[in-house]
Amino acid sequence: MAKSEKFAVGVDLGGTNIKIGIVSEDGKIISKTSIKTEAQAGPKAVIKNIKKGIDEILQTNYRKISGIGIGAPGIVSTKKGTVQNPPNLPGWDEIELGAIIKKEFGYKVSVENDANAAAIGELIFGAGQKYSSFVMVTLGTGVGGGIIFNKKLFRGEIGGAGEIGHVCIDPSGPRCNCGSTGCIEAYAGNHYIKEVVKKDLRNHPSSKIWELIEGDLERVSPRIIQMAAELGDVYAKEFIHDLGIKLGVAFTSISNILDISTFIIGGGVAGFGKPLLTTIKTTMISRVLTPLKNRIIIVPAKLKNEAGILGASALVFYNT
Amino acid sequence: MAKSEKFAVGVDLGGTNIKIGIVSEDGKIISKTSIKTEAQAGPKAVIKNIKKGIDEILQTNYRKISGIGIGAPGIVSTKKGTVQNPPNLPGWDEIELGAIIKKEFGYKVSVENDANAAAIGELIFGAGQKYSSFVMVTLGTGVGGGIIFNKKLFRGEIGGAGEIGHVCIDPSGPRCNCGSTGCIEAYAGNHYIKEVVKKDLRNHPSSKIWELIEGDLERVSPRIIQMAAELGDVYAKEFIHDLGIKLGVAFTSISNILDISTFIIGGGVAGFGKPLLTTIKTTMISRVLTPLKNRIIIVPAKLKNEAGILGASALVFYNT
Repeated sequence: MAKSEKFAVGVDLGGTNIKIGIVSEDGKIISKTSIKTEAQAGPKAVIKNIKKGIDEILQTNYRKISGIGIGAPGIVSTKKGTVQNPPNLPGWDEIELGAIIKKEFGYKVSVENDANAAAIGELIFGAGQKYSSFVMVTLGTGVGGGIIFNKKLFRGEIGGAGEIGHVCIDPSGPRCNCGSTGCIEAYAGNHYIKEVVKKDLRNHPSSKIWELIEGDLERVSPRIIQMAAELGDVYAKEFIHDLGIKLGVAFTSISNILDISTFIIGGGVAGFGKPLLTTIKTTMISRVLTPLKNRIIIVPAKLKNEAGILGASALVFYNT
Repeated sequence: MAKSEKFAVGVDLGGTNIKIGIVSEDGKIISKTSIKTEAQAGPKAVIKNIKKGIDEILQTNYRKISGIGIGAPGIVSTKKGTVQNPPNLPGWDEIELGAIIKKEFGYKVSVENDANAAAIGELIFGAGQKYSSFVMVTLGTGVGGGIIFNKKLFRGEIGGAGEIGHVCIDPSGPRCNCGSTGCIEAYAGNHYIKEVVKKDLRNHPSSKIWELIEGDLERVSPRIIQMAAELGDVYAKEFIHDLGIKLGVAFTSISNILDISTFIIGGGVAGFGKPLLTTIKTTMISRVLTPLKNRIIIVPAKLKNEAGILGASALVFYNT
């Protein structure tokens, strides 16, 4: 290990768990821990847990820490270090998380929205290193996004930019969690996928998915659909193809607005892999404006399971 | 007139006419001229006409010119001053328009895409002066756009950003000129509006539009629809309302992506006025993500007929 190497603490604040790690400047996780968020107990308890987790990880460490990065849900003011109304953390109006953690540990603290942190993670450590501009897409419970333009995060007026899950592809489409209709998240979010496939399966009695879930519809998941598709199941393959078209339609609107041609796809649903990514690309090429057609690039994210910790720690190494 | 006042030449390069004016730093047109583009005669003829027009306007002038701004269709590289594949100007692959005009007249020349120039025009001279960030929308033959973020134009990778006319609101919607389907331009572009209303009118024999066009369907225009609506015509009012909803759906996607909450609406179709703008706003408030709901602002453009000349000349006064 070179003496000059720098380290950061990355804190991935989730609704269920807080994941914390020490990460080197080249993106290696040196040590990590996880602690229950206890979101229902309110902000004081959550902050106590964050402190406890950071304290714990710092005890395992003898290295020089450059700073602490925190990826949090909700609206984040990076300047003020505040977190506002995070959807899964009840009772948080606006909390000066950055200042609180800085006061406790003395390190420089960077706070960012978790979807934006994921984009910075790919920029600093991942597939985004080789692109100046890209849209980071996280296909998970929701459809999250972050926009990198000229190696910088595009944050919008109050840090809310990149909410690509709420690009509408059909106003008469299904109700989305956000209150609107036909958002791409209402087709590609984990829960929505499960619900649609559970319904569809009744009309596809010979689908291989039935065997994989052993008849228990509650076991339907993106992973199961992917397995069925890999086994050649026609319904599962068509489902993934159709999802790719829908994502391609949404991403086309994004590319036409931003003139950004590279999309990095991460999150669990991205496990659909090449068939999904190829369909997204083909759809986009057929739909985007002419000057974009030759430039469309769709690549999988490099950061997988630990994307949260890596994204958060990348905030420390990212120069705004 | 203050001695220190600066002046710019603004050139609005259109498919039919080249409009040229001398504009003061506070946005007043001092003199102007118009010359046929003769697009069909190819780039050499068009460039000759641009030169002729600039020469003519300079002859009328005794003031100190700070520079020449050119708003051109197609893809513009502001750095290189090149114009690439403008849709209505046949034979232009990539032409170094900036260098050619600079060589001829000796002034600093700024070239920008015409939709982006319109956004800069509103920023420097118009309704955009009081906003840090906004999306400029031009509802004309097509639906053009330009994104201003923190008082700067957001250009994207190659200057193509802001193509908001090609945000899709329904992939199974009508064919758009761009080759895709269901783009907002395929509902709100001038031609599309005319075609739809001409068809609809057969089912609305008592619409006041019939009187206004004196039975001649070729005379249907946004202006006529607006007049009918102002006379209380139910069909015309519903048409405008429905268009406002569609625009609101498209703008919602844009706001969610960019976290930009102000839209400035210009162009001929914006003549539908308050009923259109109110419906856009109501639709957006009902659909955008929560943190945007209180912030949505929809205002008419300030620059009207001479928006092209003013936008082009604003390029000279705009600091990139």
